[in-house]
Amino acid sequence: MRPLSSNDYKNGYLALLEQLTTVGDIHEIQWKKTFDRMCNSGMYYVVVIEEINTHKIVGNSTLFLEQKFIHNCVLRGRVEEVVVDKEYNGQGLGKALMTLLVALAEHLGVYKLSLECRPHLVGFYEQFGYKNDGGQYLVQRFPRSD
Amino acid sequence: MRPLSSNDYKNGYLALLEQLTTVGDIHEIQWKKTFDRMCNSGMYYVVVIEEINTHKIVGNSTLFLEQKFIHNCVLRGRVEEVVVDKEYNGQGLGKALMTLLVALAEHLGVYKLSLECRPHLVGFYEQFGYKNDGGQYLVQRFPRSD
Repeated sequence: MRPLSSNDYKNGYLALLEQLTTVGDIHEIQWKKTFDRMCNSGMYYVVVIEEINTHKIVGNSTLFLEQKFIHNCVLRGRVEEVVVDKEYNGQGLGKALMTLLVALAEHLGVYKLSLECRPHLVGFYEQFGYKNDGGQYLVQRFPRSD
Repeated sequence: MRPLSSNDYKNGYLALLEQLTTVGDIHEIQWKKTFDRMCNSGMYYVVVIEEINTHKIVGNSTLFLEQKFIHNCVLRGRVEEVVVDKEYNGQGLGKALMTLLVALAEHLGVYKLSLECRPHLVGFYEQFGYKNDGGQYLVQRFPRSD
């Protein structure tokens, strides 16, 4: 388990995300630009699991921070892109990722951490302290070209 | 209606946020540091409404962007801190803020825009295209010192 590296373009990182949703045909230049944008902001903690022998990335989870003015300029956190390679399911890798991310968020001084998930995953996340707090979560989507 | 300015510390910006939730006693140095951090990231679009005669800030809404790898390195958007001074309610200021923010998000290429709100505000937001999409939204909070 380690932070995402700019070399992970070659280690199957995007193929792993493809198991979660569409990624598209991202060129290495676009990868590097996106990676640098995330690094430079200091607000993304992308934690991956690497299979040591093959260097293949088999797990991912992103902690994304937001700077607030409220609550004495506190940080807000969000968990995004949690995915474990389907060939590595059932080995506790998702649990390891979530345990680390929740501890990392608390260590960084995050006051509130949230995520969106499919209904059948609520039980999985509840074991790490998440719950439905009764607020309403509303979404709208705009057309994309890809 | 204009972007938040570093001078707005003196224009009652934090007092307006205080109508939404606790803000705390933020010194001007901390304000400037937080403001600069947001500006430098390029990911925050804070739109305020200024009362022309007094320069008082009477409305606020923040569009916060997240850089993704998925969907060809798309941008994700979130609406935060929507508040109108209670003395200016019923004048359509909230509607003006939301109309601008949704148009801004679409203009910037955001593929998905979301917000959290209290149950009684769902109807207000639905008129701007938001809806509950059936996903689960889970939250956990950590202790704060303020």
